[in-house]
Amino acid sequence: MKTAVIRKEHFNAAHRLHNKAWPEEKNQEVFGKCNNPHYHGHNYELFVKLVGEPDAQTGYIYDMKKLSDVIKSSVISRFDHKNLNLDVEEFKNLNPTAENIARVIWEILREKIEKEFDLKITLYETERNIVEYPAES
Amino acid sequence: MKTAVIRKEHFNAAHRLHNKAWPEEKNQEVFGKCNNPHYHGHNYELFVKLVGEPDAQTGYIYDMKKLSDVIKSSVISRFDHKNLNLDVEEFKNLNPTAENIARVIWEILREKIEKEFDLKITLYETERNIVEYPAES
Amino acid sequence: MKTAVIRKEHFNAAHRLHNKAWPEEKNQEVFGKCNNPHYHGHNYELFVKLVGEPDAQTGYIYDMKKLSDVIKSSVISRFDHKNLNLDVEEFKNLNPTAENIARVIWEILREKIEKEFDLKITLYETERNIVEYPAES
Amino acid sequence: MKTAVIRKEHFNAAHRLHNKAWPEEKNQEVFGKCNNPHYHGHNYELFVKLVGEPDAQTGYIYDMKKLSDVIKSSVISRFDHKNLNLDVEEFKNLNPTAENIARVIWEILREKIEKEFDLKITLYETERNIVEYPAES
Amino acid sequence: MKTAVIRKEHFNAAHRLHNKAWPEEKNQEVFGKCNNPHYHGHNYELFVKLVGEPDAQTGYIYDMKKLSDVIKSSVISRFDHKNLNLDVEEFKNLNPTAENIARVIWEILREKIEKEFDLKITLYETERNIVEYPAES
Amino acid sequence: MKTAVIRKEHFNAAHRLHNKAWPEEKNQEVFGKCNNPHYHGHNYELFVKLVGEPDAQTGYIYDMKKLSDVIKSSVISRFDHKNLNLDVEEFKNLNPTAENIARVIWEILREKIEKEFDLKITLYETERNIVEYPAES
Repeated sequence: MKTAVIRKEHFNAAHRLHNKAWPEEKNQEVFGKCNNPHYHGHNYELFVKLVGEPDAQTGYIYDMKKLSDVIKSSVISRFDHKNLNLDVEEFKNLNPTAENIARVIWEILREKIEKEFDLKITLYETERNIVEYPAES
Repeated sequence: MKTAVIRKEHFNAAHRLHNKAWPEEKNQEVFGKCNNPHYHGHNYELFVKLVGEPDAQTGYIYDMKKLSDVIKSSVISRFDHKNLNLDVEEFKNLNPTAENIARVIWEILREKIEKEFDLKITLYETERNIVEYPAES
Repeated sequence: MKTAVIRKEHFNAAHRLHNKAWPEEKNQEVFGKCNNPHYHGHNYELFVKLVGEPDAQTGYIYDMKKLSDVIKSSVISRFDHKNLNLDVEEFKNLNPTAENIARVIWEILREKIEKEFDLKITLYETERNIVEYPAES
Repeated sequence: MKTAVIRKEHFNAAHRLHNKAWPEEKNQEVFGKCNNPHYHGHNYELFVKLVGEPDAQTGYIYDMKKLSDVIKSSVISRFDHKNLNLDVEEFKNLNPTAENIARVIWEILREKIEKEFDLKITLYETERNIVEYPAES
Repeated sequence: MKTAVIRKEHFNAAHRLHNKAWPEEKNQEVFGKCNNPHYHGHNYELFVKLVGEPDAQTGYIYDMKKLSDVIKSSVISRFDHKNLNLDVEEFKNLNPTAENIARVIWEILREKIEKEFDLKITLYETERNIVEYPAES
Repeated sequence: MKTAVIRKEHFNAAHRLHNKAWPEEKNQEVFGKCNNPHYHGHNYELFVKLVGEPDAQTGYIYDMKKLSDVIKSSVISRFDHKNLNLDVEEFKNLNPTAENIARVIWEILREKIEKEFDLKITLYETERNIVEYPAES
């Protein structure tokens, strides 16, 4: 049986939900107040989960200090105190919904975390809106 | 790989754990202080999880505003500030344990949420007593 | 300068907001869904704060184990898993609003806690509705 | 002795810390990443506290449903999913630090809440950065 | 479909991460400040999850009071207010990482919980470092 | 009216409650399981509150980044992942109760924070045991 470790990090960002291919009215109708052209923002709580076998010498799945450093250098440094639509390359042409942010973070970290570990992202956009990628079950 | 969205809602209710087919002593023995004939109550925290594929146009699995509205109109409006045993049809002959409440909510929402989405309920009766239906794994 | 210690305990209870001197319509108008004749309920989170001088021998304001025992024997044992309106003497003729519950708990504990300690109650009826007695400032 | 009631509400917003009278380098030096010209954002948790005497008929200091409605109509409707710098009149020429946001909310609500009640605002910009206005003690 | 119940308990303990087979410098290099020879400590939050079929008579998967008692008598009584390295038999020769603590708790409880129930442990060492055993998915 | 800012930081530490002037039995009787000679430990959550007047140029009471740095360099670096009894000078001859830890932190920070700001410490030893120094009211 495998073991999972989960590290929690956070970032604050502005964003706007918008589909450039749609007229303004449709954007307004579908995204409502999330479509505010001046942006709004969130405190994002990010949980990164790795599944693997504990190392016999250390008793670790993964050094949590190292995991924190990887998340900070590859995700937090690029997303924190940023405007996701304007400042983060991946969202120049991708709507920064919580679903898409979680998947983009997964893709960034999948490059950094050794393939022997399964990787899963859980992202709290607010206390009431949460996304998981990939979904369990 | 699929993505999950989770929406948190809440309701407050009174309930009593009781098996009508049992004598009072057995009810008291099995359910203890939860069997109080005058009822007690909880702040229930409800997490509704949908698993599916993000829509290419919106980047949404499911519009969280719409999900919140569905939960409110079909569950919260019927359970909030209610006595589950006396006021909610489904518990007239079903013991309102957290396990049964979670399953009943799942059955109500399963009728309202399109079949392409997997559905899972997590219900906090207190910070210390939690139920999931269906169980992951 | 004085020091404060705060102990957190909890209880679950059913209640109904109701003024017996008013007709039903007025009760319904003023208390809304909190007036449900079949009751509803809450997980109450109770914070009890004592202010005093630390004991030179122990470094304690008050032994937190002893404070927990006092709260449990005089408040929790009488309120937990109860119907406040029907099962708790103090609310037979007093509306169990959060304001009144906090004051009643203060009056019970004031008898049990030595007078050299200032006493304050903070009661969470839900995460969003909170009461303090007596109010700071 | 008086009693306090506290109501929690929330809003999400984008903002930028900036002093228009300063050159860019000074803004960058003082406000750091909070000075991002494209904005960043937060989930603000707002606690509004009223201190007064309970009404003898209701047992309420203030009807919490009414308090919630007052906060929503005068603050949340104007701040939620907004860019504080661009969309909210009060911050057109006032830096939207948490300190200033709390004071502005106090000034808005002070007009709406009867003078017999003391009023205090606590604002969480993040879990780690919190402001109170006016300060207790 | 099965249902899960989850019970939350907690314990406070001191520990030190250390591999006796390694020289001091290597222990220091790998475990950093967690290798402090005088120990440090945590408030551990423990979630125990059982998956099974609800009993038709009670509506319970498992009596939560009984589950709490089993966890307290077999785990909390042995771990709480202890030094894991010195006071707990299982860690005399096993590094008390969160991964190993979770697995040891699983092994203890697996002996106590009937085999018809799947068992899973989630352990919060801090709000930011979390372990699951066995890992879901 | 003044404004308060509050910064939350945390540290993990081992400790033992013990009065060297007392015989073992009395220590055991008074401090119970907190007297374990091998130590136990906690995740301490520390809130540091400064009360003052906002600066007209910045809108800040105090730069929260600077406040965090002051707390980290003078308190967290000396307390985190430490054994309070053995590793922290101030507790060599002072019982590390939460009350005493809060006062020691106040004394350390009072030297570092300009006198124009009132200073208050709130320390969570666990979710259920909390200390304030100096006490409000």
